Amino acid sequence: MDSVKKLAFASDYMKGAHPRLLQRLVETNLQQTGGYGQDPACESAAAKIKEACGCPEGKVVFLMGGTQTNAVMIDAFLSSWQGVIAAQTGHISMHEAGAIESAGHKVITLPQEQGKLSAADTALYMEKFYADETWPHMVCPGMVYLSQPTEYGTLYTRKELQEFREVCDRFGLALYVDGARLAYALASPENNVLLPDLAACCDAFYIGGTKCGALFGEAVVIPDGTRLPHLFTIMKQHGAVLAKGRLLGLQFDELFTDHLYEQIGAAAIREAVRIQDAAEKKGRKLLFRSPTNQVFCVMENDELQEFGGKVSYSFWEPYDEKHTVIRLATDWGTLPEETDALIDLL
Amino acid sequence: MDSVKKLAFASDYMKGAHPRLLQRLVETNLQQTGGYGQDPACESAAAKIKEACGCPEGKVVFLMGGTQTNAVMIDAFLSSWQGVIAAQTGHISMHEAGAIESAGHKVITLPQEQGKLSAADTALYMEKFYADETWPHMVCPGMVYLSQPTEYGTLYTRKELQEFREVCDRFGLALYVDGARLAYALASPENNVLLPDLAACCDAFYIGGTKCGALFGEAVVIPDGTRLPHLFTIMKQHGAVLAKGRLLGLQFDELFTDHLYEQIGAAAIREAVRIQDAAEKKGRKLLFRSPTNQVFCVMENDELQEFGGKVSYSFWEPYDEKHTVIRLATDWGTLPEETDALIDLL
Amino acid sequence: MDSVKKLAFASDYMKGAHPRLLQRLVETNLQQTGGYGQDPACESAAAKIKEACGCPEGKVVFLMGGTQTNAVMIDAFLSSWQGVIAAQTGHISMHEAGAIESAGHKVITLPQEQGKLSAADTALYMEKFYADETWPHMVCPGMVYLSQPTEYGTLYTRKELQEFREVCDRFGLALYVDGARLAYALASPENNVLLPDLAACCDAFYIGGTKCGALFGEAVVIPDGTRLPHLFTIMKQHGAVLAKGRLLGLQFDELFTDHLYEQIGAAAIREAVRIQDAAEKKGRKLLFRSPTNQVFCVMENDELQEFGGKVSYSFWEPYDEKHTVIRLATDWGTLPEETDALIDLL
Amino acid sequence: MDSVKKLAFASDYMKGAHPRLLQRLVETNLQQTGGYGQDPACESAAAKIKEACGCPEGKVVFLMGGTQTNAVMIDAFLSSWQGVIAAQTGHISMHEAGAIESAGHKVITLPQEQGKLSAADTALYMEKFYADETWPHMVCPGMVYLSQPTEYGTLYTRKELQEFREVCDRFGLALYVDGARLAYALASPENNVLLPDLAACCDAFYIGGTKCGALFGEAVVIPDGTRLPHLFTIMKQHGAVLAKGRLLGLQFDELFTDHLYEQIGAAAIREAVRIQDAAEKKGRKLLFRSPTNQVFCVMENDELQEFGGKVSYSFWEPYDEKHTVIRLATDWGTLPEETDALIDLL
Repeated sequence: MDSVKKLAFASDYMKGAHPRLLQRLVETNLQQTGGYGQDPACESAAAKIKEACGCPEGKVVFLMGGTQTNAVMIDAFLSSWQGVIAAQTGHISMHEAGAIESAGHKVITLPQEQGKLSAADTALYMEKFYADETWPHMVCPGMVYLSQPTEYGTLYTRKELQEFREVCDRFGLALYVDGARLAYALASPENNVLLPDLAACCDAFYIGGTKCGALFGEAVVIPDGTRLPHLFTIMKQHGAVLAKGRLLGLQFDELFTDHLYEQIGAAAIREAVRIQDAAEKKGRKLLFRSPTNQVFCVMENDELQEFGGKVSYSFWEPYDEKHTVIRLATDWGTLPEETDALIDLL
Repeated sequence: MDSVKKLAFASDYMKGAHPRLLQRLVETNLQQTGGYGQDPACESAAAKIKEACGCPEGKVVFLMGGTQTNAVMIDAFLSSWQGVIAAQTGHISMHEAGAIESAGHKVITLPQEQGKLSAADTALYMEKFYADETWPHMVCPGMVYLSQPTEYGTLYTRKELQEFREVCDRFGLALYVDGARLAYALASPENNVLLPDLAACCDAFYIGGTKCGALFGEAVVIPDGTRLPHLFTIMKQHGAVLAKGRLLGLQFDELFTDHLYEQIGAAAIREAVRIQDAAEKKGRKLLFRSPTNQVFCVMENDELQEFGGKVSYSFWEPYDEKHTVIRLATDWGTLPEETDALIDLL
Repeated sequence: MDSVKKLAFASDYMKGAHPRLLQRLVETNLQQTGGYGQDPACESAAAKIKEACGCPEGKVVFLMGGTQTNAVMIDAFLSSWQGVIAAQTGHISMHEAGAIESAGHKVITLPQEQGKLSAADTALYMEKFYADETWPHMVCPGMVYLSQPTEYGTLYTRKELQEFREVCDRFGLALYVDGARLAYALASPENNVLLPDLAACCDAFYIGGTKCGALFGEAVVIPDGTRLPHLFTIMKQHGAVLAKGRLLGLQFDELFTDHLYEQIGAAAIREAVRIQDAAEKKGRKLLFRSPTNQVFCVMENDELQEFGGKVSYSFWEPYDEKHTVIRLATDWGTLPEETDALIDLL
Repeated sequence: MDSVKKLAFASDYMKGAHPRLLQRLVETNLQQTGGYGQDPACESAAAKIKEACGCPEGKVVFLMGGTQTNAVMIDAFLSSWQGVIAAQTGHISMHEAGAIESAGHKVITLPQEQGKLSAADTALYMEKFYADETWPHMVCPGMVYLSQPTEYGTLYTRKELQEFREVCDRFGLALYVDGARLAYALASPENNVLLPDLAACCDAFYIGGTKCGALFGEAVVIPDGTRLPHLFTIMKQHGAVLAKGRLLGLQFDELFTDHLYEQIGAAAIREAVRIQDAAEKKGRKLLFRSPTNQVFCVMENDELQEFGGKVSYSFWEPYDEKHTVIRLATDWGTLPEETDALIDLL
């Protein structure tokens, strides 16, 4: 297992789970409960999440992964003739192998900046759409998809989110936020979007587990619990109902006990800040100063082979002929000494 | 958690995992590996499974649950204009919320007996299909779906499976076997279909984990590994790729170490046999003598409420005005003393 | 063109159009109008149809063929997780190549008698469905599909239709009637379901043109015109919007001028009655006495080859080892002398 | 019918059919033939088209409209996990209401110039696609979609088409050409892509009828007739098989008799050239000099209302704050005196 020996900054889903989650699974292993999410752990986790989000009347369901969650939720909100607006760099636009289209929905891509869509661009698109009298011949947008943090690790502000809400209200769009890495947004010193803000602005959003310390799992929050009464069947139709649903409930119950989810985010942010501080100090160029756990560093092509022998990283994009942007991701389990070792290598 | 106190025979996915699997997850938790099934554990598990199946040139992939596996594999084998033949009682016909249809494929249902389809009926259907000159106006079958054991716990024999293979060859159909509870088939004294027989007869089949001792997960075997070169993308499109794919690899690697998968099946069969022996001795009517881990017992409606207060069971179907068929399922973790207590109540 | 010389009773879509329709196309050929159904002829036809149906607040749209119409309308009414109930012999169950499934909807088939579904069976199915606590794991019915006349040429009575309406109201189902051959129902002496009855009972139905004297085209009636506000886009998504939509409007405008649609039906029924009277008189066995334009006659297998050399007919089904049921269909253009010649051959 | 009185340059599908086609329908109206495209007229038309294309071993099928044809053919060639590359301005990208996505296929849009995609851009996209090791997580292109002429009326040259063929061969892509307005390409003095060139370069293309003088209908040519053996079923599944298929056969048989299709194109081109010559002479700005039947003229916003009272035109796009680009389309039936009257108004 060669990769074990390298410093592991390739992504935030390369280890197992935060030990407290695993411990919880071990302790409850022989208990016998209902299946398909009908069990006390799911109930307890949902209650804690609703409280944290300030939406006691909401509904919380647990799914297994990000692509699955996006596919289910977008399909659940859209009618067959509707599409979803997303940034060109959105996960659903790029890296979900057409999961949205496979349910018949077009992903309508708009330009982005550092992964962020703007409410103004979205409003402009919608105005032009309905101004064109041939609009019934076109895919009608029914939803806006955002990621918080974005695929570039950047953040929407509360004000920006509220602007999206206004645009969505104006044009009859649902607002959905993909929070695959939400822990890292919540823990960012630059962030002012809290869980209750998401609940106040979104028709639905999800709190990521897979990339934030769980073995796997995402918790979808639908602030108005009267929406989507047939969501279970839609999940089942997508093959997205876990038989032993309690595995998801147990993990999220633990994540929302004693602020563990916040701690997980904070640990990763702390290390990402240290990496960026050190990189700048050492004269390394950053693509931009990232507010979350993904650090984008410009490296010379010539040094990458040696660096790659010691550090697992992700290729991001070419920078110029002689340089490459790489991504270094921290997570809940990044040890300060690993960061130290990485800094030495920069 | 009220349900804990009852004797738990409602189904075989009500507990966590066999302790050895959980132990394996704990031990490897901090290791850092590649994602999406590209890791040493998946590689090792695949190698062990291919060896057990006698198909060294095969391909093994891991998915998260049964409905998802069926949806992915049926979609992977069929062209857009094809459908899949299944028993009316098949899981894909009844309890998957239209997952197959949602990918555009009709489930063509044929009559069954105790959950079993017959090769002769299938051949007859195909003969009539092509004899009807309007067949291009109809959904063209492209696959036969069987369950081993069936949803009634019954078993196909090796000879029956070979007959299906012949019918499939004759009419250009893929043969796919859903092995959600395969451990219990393999361990049944009445069974003569071994893993190499499945590999010899099927275009693909899956070895069930979720209902056979894993936290979750199913291992798909494609004996001819050159088939379905784009399976990963199809899985991704279905939201069926687990980011931390090693969780599946680790579990199946353990299941196929030191015959654990066989032992899990054997333990459940032993208890099922004891229940059926005792029931018959006590004059209880069985719907039929089940060869696997699902026992179908005819109960008086009047006694069900009290019985249900002490035992978790599944309602199966009405028997007559005064009687009901219930299902009692054993699993890897059913303790002999639980069986004793159940027998006392019968 | 060998088939021209035979007596043509194979089906009711073997000729062109009623001459009045063709004349109308010729007369208006050089007029320039809006496309996609936005033209005076469509407007006029819709107005006449709404008047004939007694639903002035309704909506009428024109599509190109039966399979297309069924696919569009069923998809328009159903949510992604819903299916449609139909007779096992329903056109959508059998002869539409999975068009319904290709939009993700299961066709849930119930037993039939001479092509007819019963409201009681439908109610029973729905009761059992919701009585089963696992129903969220199953495809939820959202519509009942009936054909008037059925694929066997039989008719629902007004009372039966009203019973379906009650069942649909009780279980939240839409009621949709496929009227591919509606002219022949309306003209049948046994029929008591008039256009206003269909409008009163159905959420939508269509008035068939293709098999009732038009070159092609079906007119969908949605009695409550506020339903399906995005139907145009759904049609477009299905490739079901005719650029020169006026071709459909012109034909239906003519069909609903001076009772032409009724006359077309009456002519076909008159000849079908004559054929059946003669057949019975000659001791020929009918599968049953058909109330509409499709006659089902039991023939000896030995005589079919010679008969088939003189008459175009459709094979229907085997009757017994020595006999076959054939279908003879009359239409608007069946000449009395053709019927005479056919009778001579019986 | 207010629109009749205006000069009609709004589009090329505002009238009925070329009189010779209508005459053919009238003459054959009472003939009785097989349905669903199995008739002598379809056979004859297919033979003439194959001869004109120089692909005697090819297959020709007839569909009802452009969106339907694109949806069927793209679905027929692609596997479930594949997408289609198109210009951002391609008809399938913009104006087909998501018909391609509704069958599960992503439309992958690339930049264009005056409606044209470039083979070099396509090759670059494919190179980058496979260079990215995460490509199995993305929609895999399986086809290139071009329009000849494009939605802007521009033309690919034979050399450009051959370059696309090379790129497609290199990356395993099918090449499909949408010829909705092919008659106008073939008749353009700037065109050097003849029918045999299309047959030599494409996996499939269609010869447009609806916008080129037919009542409706498009003829798909598949130069290698052994491809897509189940195309009929795919068409049926899309609701795209016309019961009286001969209507399509008769029209295309006539279009390919005595060079009618060429004459139709030539008449429209002649008038388009006259309009453009006159516009330039009068100092009118053209968006560009169009080689086909769609003329794009820059008009002052202030004059549009009066102009629009006399001429039916299509809004194309804003030019600047004070100007608008309008589209004027000629067709087979545009009379020289209509063009004269239009020129007077420019």
